[in-house]
Amino acid sequence: MTSASKPLALVVLAAGKGTRMKSDKHKVLHPIAGRPMLEHLLESARALAPERQVVVAGHGRDQLERALGGSAAIAVQEPQLGTGHAVQQAEQALAGFEGDVLILYGDVPFVRTETMRAMIERLHAPDAPAVVVLGFEPEDPLQYGRVLAHDDGRIAMMVEYKDANEEQRACRLCNSGLMTVKSADLFDLLGKVGNDNAQGEYYLVDIVNIATLEGRDCAVIITDDPDEVGGINSRGELAEAEARWQKKRRVQAMADGVTLIAPETVFFAWDTQIGRDVTIEPNVVFGPGVTVADDVVIHAFSHLEGATLETGTSIGPYARLRPGAVLREGAKIGNFVEMKNAVLGEGAKANHLTYLGDAEVGAAANIGAGTITCNYDGYFKHRTVIGDRAFIGSNSALVAPVKIGADAIVAAGSAVTRDVGDGELRLVRGEQLVKPGWADRFHDAMKKKKAEAQK
Amino acid sequence: MTSASKPLALVVLAAGKGTRMKSDKHKVLHPIAGRPMLEHLLESARALAPERQVVVAGHGRDQLERALGGSAAIAVQEPQLGTGHAVQQAEQALAGFEGDVLILYGDVPFVRTETMRAMIERLHAPDAPAVVVLGFEPEDPLQYGRVLAHDDGRIAMMVEYKDANEEQRACRLCNSGLMTVKSADLFDLLGKVGNDNAQGEYYLVDIVNIATLEGRDCAVIITDDPDEVGGINSRGELAEAEARWQKKRRVQAMADGVTLIAPETVFFAWDTQIGRDVTIEPNVVFGPGVTVADDVVIHAFSHLEGATLETGTSIGPYARLRPGAVLREGAKIGNFVEMKNAVLGEGAKANHLTYLGDAEVGAAANIGAGTITCNYDGYFKHRTVIGDRAFIGSNSALVAPVKIGADAIVAAGSAVTRDVGDGELRLVRGEQLVKPGWADRFHDAMKKKKAEAQK
Amino acid sequence: MTSASKPLALVVLAAGKGTRMKSDKHKVLHPIAGRPMLEHLLESARALAPERQVVVAGHGRDQLERALGGSAAIAVQEPQLGTGHAVQQAEQALAGFEGDVLILYGDVPFVRTETMRAMIERLHAPDAPAVVVLGFEPEDPLQYGRVLAHDDGRIAMMVEYKDANEEQRACRLCNSGLMTVKSADLFDLLGKVGNDNAQGEYYLVDIVNIATLEGRDCAVIITDDPDEVGGINSRGELAEAEARWQKKRRVQAMADGVTLIAPETVFFAWDTQIGRDVTIEPNVVFGPGVTVADDVVIHAFSHLEGATLETGTSIGPYARLRPGAVLREGAKIGNFVEMKNAVLGEGAKANHLTYLGDAEVGAAANIGAGTITCNYDGYFKHRTVIGDRAFIGSNSALVAPVKIGADAIVAAGSAVTRDVGDGELRLVRGEQLVKPGWADRFHDAMKKKKAEAQK
Repeated sequence: MTSASKPLALVVLAAGKGTRMKSDKHKVLHPIAGRPMLEHLLESARALAPERQVVVAGHGRDQLERALGGSAAIAVQEPQLGTGHAVQQAEQALAGFEGDVLILYGDVPFVRTETMRAMIERLHAPDAPAVVVLGFEPEDPLQYGRVLAHDDGRIAMMVEYKDANEEQRACRLCNSGLMTVKSADLFDLLGKVGNDNAQGEYYLVDIVNIATLEGRDCAVIITDDPDEVGGINSRGELAEAEARWQKKRRVQAMADGVTLIAPETVFFAWDTQIGRDVTIEPNVVFGPGVTVADDVVIHAFSHLEGATLETGTSIGPYARLRPGAVLREGAKIGNFVEMKNAVLGEGAKANHLTYLGDAEVGAAANIGAGTITCNYDGYFKHRTVIGDRAFIGSNSALVAPVKIGADAIVAAGSAVTRDVGDGELRLVRGEQLVKPGWADRFHDAMKKKKAEAQK
Repeated sequence: MTSASKPLALVVLAAGKGTRMKSDKHKVLHPIAGRPMLEHLLESARALAPERQVVVAGHGRDQLERALGGSAAIAVQEPQLGTGHAVQQAEQALAGFEGDVLILYGDVPFVRTETMRAMIERLHAPDAPAVVVLGFEPEDPLQYGRVLAHDDGRIAMMVEYKDANEEQRACRLCNSGLMTVKSADLFDLLGKVGNDNAQGEYYLVDIVNIATLEGRDCAVIITDDPDEVGGINSRGELAEAEARWQKKRRVQAMADGVTLIAPETVFFAWDTQIGRDVTIEPNVVFGPGVTVADDVVIHAFSHLEGATLETGTSIGPYARLRPGAVLREGAKIGNFVEMKNAVLGEGAKANHLTYLGDAEVGAAANIGAGTITCNYDGYFKHRTVIGDRAFIGSNSALVAPVKIGADAIVAAGSAVTRDVGDGELRLVRGEQLVKPGWADRFHDAMKKKKAEAQK
Repeated sequence: MTSASKPLALVVLAAGKGTRMKSDKHKVLHPIAGRPMLEHLLESARALAPERQVVVAGHGRDQLERALGGSAAIAVQEPQLGTGHAVQQAEQALAGFEGDVLILYGDVPFVRTETMRAMIERLHAPDAPAVVVLGFEPEDPLQYGRVLAHDDGRIAMMVEYKDANEEQRACRLCNSGLMTVKSADLFDLLGKVGNDNAQGEYYLVDIVNIATLEGRDCAVIITDDPDEVGGINSRGELAEAEARWQKKRRVQAMADGVTLIAPETVFFAWDTQIGRDVTIEPNVVFGPGVTVADDVVIHAFSHLEGATLETGTSIGPYARLRPGAVLREGAKIGNFVEMKNAVLGEGAKANHLTYLGDAEVGAAANIGAGTITCNYDGYFKHRTVIGDRAFIGSNSALVAPVKIGADAIVAAGSAVTRDVGDGELRLVRGEQLVKPGWADRFHDAMKKKKAEAQK
């Protein structure tokens, strides 16, 4: 791989206002498949082992700093005077760097690693172009800038749509804005870019025409998937990008041996891992951090985040697994059940209307309908530990910290505040108060009252 | 605006059987986006401030009367002898009226106000046509009646598909049925319409040809959106109209700064109001009457009706907000929680498996998992009032009417029937009955019994 | 009908590995609309009253045997030496049979009965073809084998794509693989098929060319719906078949008078029965065995299986009806409620957060929020019987076996272990323990502790 032999620097432009998003959140931090779009891009680029990474920030740079957490340098562009000016702001962060510079856009998140690699390799081809531009051929070239190129990929001229004549507009090869340039060339060329245009901005694309005028070759390579250079400028485009991502992921899941009864209703996260012979019913939503083993059934209307499902488990419908939920082999979670930071032991069951939080449930235990682990006292969280084969009667409240022994039974409706020993029965219940005829008298009185109220 | 200077009357035809709907409900009362299609139409027309409104009813007119509740006059067409005959039935309700008449169809609900206005204005153009017809040019003109018109919009002839020759059928301009006519002309022309045709019916469209034969000009104006004149004659077409409506509304929401992760899975009502930087996860259903402020997160599988979500609130997944549910700033509703006619105070939380009905919850209160407000005694509804910062332990039943004081604590599993004072602890719980070894003996006995049962 | 006059035998090929499914489950047992695809096929074929039914199995034949449960004979093909070889394995099971043989494929499940019938009738047409082939004309004929036929349907030649020349490939009539042959001819022709080809396999299609060479006519009939011969070889194709099935079923439901607000979000099972004027909100999933009468409302996010909804009932949102759930006329199930093997009487209600299992609820009874029928003791299931007009207070646990009388009242929060008589009040509740100021002191102490913990 060429990129291994030459140092690489990434310059990611992320200084735009993103006005059309109508959001206080920075545009490149809006998530797709549960991850900020900038992270999608950086992950693909990091596969090339860049030596330096610079994100050029303008508006909302505080948000970017928090999101990046030091994983990339931030260069500030203030004021924003165009894409060429933006790349120039990275000069200081690239001080001392010699190698290839790959220029990316934070709002163009789905460029593939292989495309980036091809751009870098092209830069080192025998004809040694000064700049390599990534071109694309969309269905409808709209008002994108055009790349006028020779058959061998050498660029004759870059032309903005508004400056293009009829013939030039008929060219369908468009400029994605992505480029590779050697660091030595980059800032030299940028220094020659002017702002003598309607917007008064410094355009990055001008470095191509400047290099060409100086007698150097520039080259274009063309992606075979125009979708990968799609920019995201509005929530509508964000939704379209999400839809494209989900569609690909669903196709992949099915190819891997997962049954999706209605693929278009299942939403994966960027890191969802699923085994073979898993069935996913309609309407299932995965948040980040979910791992599903083989032979699992996920019933309709389930919602998972940060959960681990071992082999042969089954959840839902209406299962809500939150971070730290772990189902050991063959365990089962039924409807209207929530788990958070809790382990359900091998073959254990919690089938109905239950909340298991900060809990550990032993193998083959049976958690009755309506059981609540009372894990919070308003100030601190506490743990509930339930032994193997324990039976928790319905509508019980287990007030943590509390421990229920192996084979123990908690009677229905009990609020358990003290530990229950192995094989012990715990029953917390008031006296059965019986009032024969009381209900009949109540009904009579209330019917009379209701009739009066309706007069 | 012309409509301001001339009085306007609406005549809405709604006498058809709607046989293809296979429904006991009147066709025009079937809802789209949570509102009867007739109401969609009337709202658009009422923007023109009509002086009179007449709905011509036949089958199911009782239902129409109840639905309209006096907001429009009802003229009865019995028997149903065609569209011309239907409009004639409005004559009495229009007695004394002089001005423009706009003829609409209850099952063509999405005609835009601007289109109606253009039809009225055309009626008052210098060439003063006797009738203005709204034409449309569908992709496939099928068997619609054709409008044969000159380039200036004057109508040469209206022709039914079955009476049209090849050349006439090749014309793609179709008759929507919508018309504007001056009241003076309308009933004069209708009086000349005959029923000498295969169906023995009086067709409204004939007034155009009659006026033309009398030497008067009639004119067509053409909608640029053929969808707006789409009629709804079956549940299939109802679903398509709903889908078109929802699609437009979703695009609008995203343009306004709402993130829809999967737009096609979010269903709005006709009056849903949503702020900026709101995120709506997949599979959310809005019934009528919902207002959502800025910076709200609506998690997957939530269902809202008549609810108000203030800034920074968060609900779901699986939140069910019914009419009268109000979340004050920063409040939070979690999974499997239902609210009805209840206010959740600033920063308060009800995260799991809870029913809050006819309740008022103070700021920063914490409602434990499985809490139920027992608001109904079988005859009357009663209120529960919970103070600021109160802590309701899990699996509690609050038997209304009841008041829990500020900073009070209700212990888990309590059924509270009497008021709890500020800063007070209320604990309603039976004695902890411990039976060591009981469970072990029970298991032994039951295993034996089970083994015998399986023999 | 010809098939009534001639005995019919089915031979269903199901010996393929189904490698692309990546599944331990036999390919033909993967379900569509809740039923194995093989069953869909067999049901359509059984409408022709076949005298014999043979399924040719190879891989996973144990699974097939269990699934068929004796309803069809199984012939084993081991090793798998091609489709011709597969059909030969049925010879023994067809010993003594004289009549027509219809050759089907377990992974081509949606061939219509009328198509099968047409194939059989063609076999008995005056020209008495030796073999009748079902052809189809797909949008894109890909690499399917071609049927070169005369205008009258006589087959000139069957040719595999890879053996076809340009002209032959231009022919769009493709071979579905389905055939009818008289039993006398079938095994005679099969005996002449060789395996002198690249794969070393015996191809069924060769019997057509052999018969033709022997001077006998063979005929093709062409389906007007290429979808019906679509094979299912991957989970992607399984999902597409499911989608096509669901789409047809939704259109049918709407035509029958069912309102589907968002048809694409409603999933039916193969045997779902729905009455007129039923409204189904978005996101509803039907498992097998559901019957819905007229005038029912199924709210969003409901999940039904084996349930019966009588006239005027209403469920959901978030209703989960499991097998044996029966709602009598006008009964109502609300949100987060699960029913299993339970009957809800006329006009009775269970509106919130409830589990009704192995229960019988009387007419007009009111089941309060959070009620649980404790039907399981860890070993056996027990029944709960609730009388007419009984009122079960919220958060109650009814420990089965138990009987609540007519007009009886169970107070909120009661765990009822003994029968309650008619008109009786049952109250199971601990003492109300009041500790004034306790909560205030607790808050003070915990705030201090929390502050320390955060240091």
